[in-house]
Amino acid sequence: MMKYRLMAPGPTPVPEDVLTEMAKPIFHHRTPAFEKIVAEVQSGLKWLYQTKNDVIVLASSGTGAMEACLSNALCTGDGVLVVNGGKFGERFGKIAKAFGLKADLIDVKWGHAVDPSVIQSKLASGDYRAVCVQASETSTGVAHPIKEISEIVRKQPNTLLIVDAITALGVVNIPTDEWDIDMVICGSQKALMLPPGLATVSVSDKAWSFIEKSNIPKFYFNLKSERKVLAQNTTAWTPAVSLMIGLKTALESMKKEGLEQMFVRHEKMATGIRGAAKAIGLKLYAPESPSHSCTAICAPEGVDSSKLVKGLRDKFNMTIADGQDDAKGKIFRIGHLGYFDMLDMVSCWAAVEKQLFDLGYKFELGKGVGEILKLM
Amino acid sequence: MMKYRLMAPGPTPVPEDVLTEMAKPIFHHRTPAFEKIVAEVQSGLKWLYQTKNDVIVLASSGTGAMEACLSNALCTGDGVLVVNGGKFGERFGKIAKAFGLKADLIDVKWGHAVDPSVIQSKLASGDYRAVCVQASETSTGVAHPIKEISEIVRKQPNTLLIVDAITALGVVNIPTDEWDIDMVICGSQKALMLPPGLATVSVSDKAWSFIEKSNIPKFYFNLKSERKVLAQNTTAWTPAVSLMIGLKTALESMKKEGLEQMFVRHEKMATGIRGAAKAIGLKLYAPESPSHSCTAICAPEGVDSSKLVKGLRDKFNMTIADGQDDAKGKIFRIGHLGYFDMLDMVSCWAAVEKQLFDLGYKFELGKGVGEILKLM
Repeated sequence: MMKYRLMAPGPTPVPEDVLTEMAKPIFHHRTPAFEKIVAEVQSGLKWLYQTKNDVIVLASSGTGAMEACLSNALCTGDGVLVVNGGKFGERFGKIAKAFGLKADLIDVKWGHAVDPSVIQSKLASGDYRAVCVQASETSTGVAHPIKEISEIVRKQPNTLLIVDAITALGVVNIPTDEWDIDMVICGSQKALMLPPGLATVSVSDKAWSFIEKSNIPKFYFNLKSERKVLAQNTTAWTPAVSLMIGLKTALESMKKEGLEQMFVRHEKMATGIRGAAKAIGLKLYAPESPSHSCTAICAPEGVDSSKLVKGLRDKFNMTIADGQDDAKGKIFRIGHLGYFDMLDMVSCWAAVEKQLFDLGYKFELGKGVGEILKLM
Repeated sequence: MMKYRLMAPGPTPVPEDVLTEMAKPIFHHRTPAFEKIVAEVQSGLKWLYQTKNDVIVLASSGTGAMEACLSNALCTGDGVLVVNGGKFGERFGKIAKAFGLKADLIDVKWGHAVDPSVIQSKLASGDYRAVCVQASETSTGVAHPIKEISEIVRKQPNTLLIVDAITALGVVNIPTDEWDIDMVICGSQKALMLPPGLATVSVSDKAWSFIEKSNIPKFYFNLKSERKVLAQNTTAWTPAVSLMIGLKTALESMKKEGLEQMFVRHEKMATGIRGAAKAIGLKLYAPESPSHSCTAICAPEGVDSSKLVKGLRDKFNMTIADGQDDAKGKIFRIGHLGYFDMLDMVSCWAAVEKQLFDLGYKFELGKGVGEILKLM
């Protein structure tokens, strides 16, 4: 008997009080009771996003919101600059292609962050209506420098900054208004501590003006329609009722903890896992600009990370993530965003140590765990 | 934000599937549906107890079942031999006194197990209708030698063996029929993995013959009445419906794991905590005959165990237990019975290490955790 431990970079565990709320009987969404929930969720999201902008809630995965940003804000044939340093950067490129946009990919070596000066010179020499970038590239465990990028893009009146903060919002400080980010995307199954099924996107005045001109076909993901009905505290289509109720509950917990404390907690967990990895001689996959949401660690010489992932599943009933594409078998990724605390890092890392040890990598068992303890 | 971690020797955490079942709407207990549950619970309990005896389920705490044993099986003025090596042994003595029994207490030094030869000579020289003993004395972390005691008592036709196995059943092997134990008591909030509120007691043929003659006043705890209606798969009084549903679910999980595997898991967790304690130089309170349910550990020189318990509560949102009476401030007790696995031991011990360290006891952080990992 081993308890299930979900340590992937998403979906993440759902707190007990959220599960309890979501288990209550469904009620109808065209009612004053549900309108109250929409209003409370909106107010909570504005707090979390640190914005006065409307935050549109979509019944979709995060990818739906990525599509919504491009299909709503742009016109066919528009140039978009895409930071391509992992699976999710790549996805922005694929969406752009599907909607007839001219995607210019800045290829960044996996495990590295984009150099903002590359964006600067691209914008100076080319014609781009949007810059698309991940705040946290989950496939590589990299944090891209959003603040620096925002300082460059905000000077461009004809270019929007679209940030996929799906694994970053609620983890690190991304002050939407202070940094003038036009569209910030999030997904429910990450630091929002909910099951998958909801995506959120904030839209700046500048982005709304782009949306007014957009000619790309869209129906379900229509941000303008959503904004219109949001003023009446409702949604254009049937909302994911129980997820909205869950979001209201999760936002209340987050408010209780406080933004600053949430950022500190996540940084501490990330620092703990990185320190633990280094303490037993492992190398970080993204040492220069690591994400606080998800740590990618290189498997030691002679150890196949896929075997580590499988061993943790079979022996410890624990889910962590393997590398993707070329990194498969070479790195492993531990999620530490959302409903986690330092003792979760301890038990997760203990299992990783044991499994690595059993796979033939030798070191003093407990050494990495000791590093985490020092931070507590 | 620290998750609540309940590491006391009871109540213990309730598994998610049991919580879900118990959250379903209550249905009436005088129905075929509930009778089916009573029958399934009875069959499951017989499996868990390793007995053909009826196992009576009472809506009470474990203390209620302790009282039921004495008040149902004995007559006013009967002599009872009570092993008094901790708070729960003491309680048997108090119940005996309340019901006009002549309790003869075998005082055993806290932290030690009773010597079976003392019971042997007492039975040879005195007149006792029952021997009362804890399989696991939770206040001291001691396991009394039930098998040896049962070999002595079974030879006495006029003496019952009453075993409080509240924190032992489902943890260690106590084969009720093989060892001829007349009454075995258990409580829901221990290895049965339920909230508090149910107690169970198995009754042998020998005990039923004692019950026939009993003259002690009783009404709510009437084992004979319960046995009569148990044949119709119901209960004398209103049963604790949701707890019965929970017990059915928990017994199903236990059957899936298997008795042998349950015993192995608990022994491993206990061995892990003991090894971890010794690895950082701590002394066990009951080194000679430690319980596998709960480990009592002496606080190091200069550290007040009450401060450790308080620190774990305030800083880690974790509940462990202080010592009681004279042992208060001197020992701390960690529960590892029921819904726990080895990684729970890791996170619990990590917090204990950190808190001891912060209270001034110095050692290499993570050393004890490493000992647990070696067993995994």
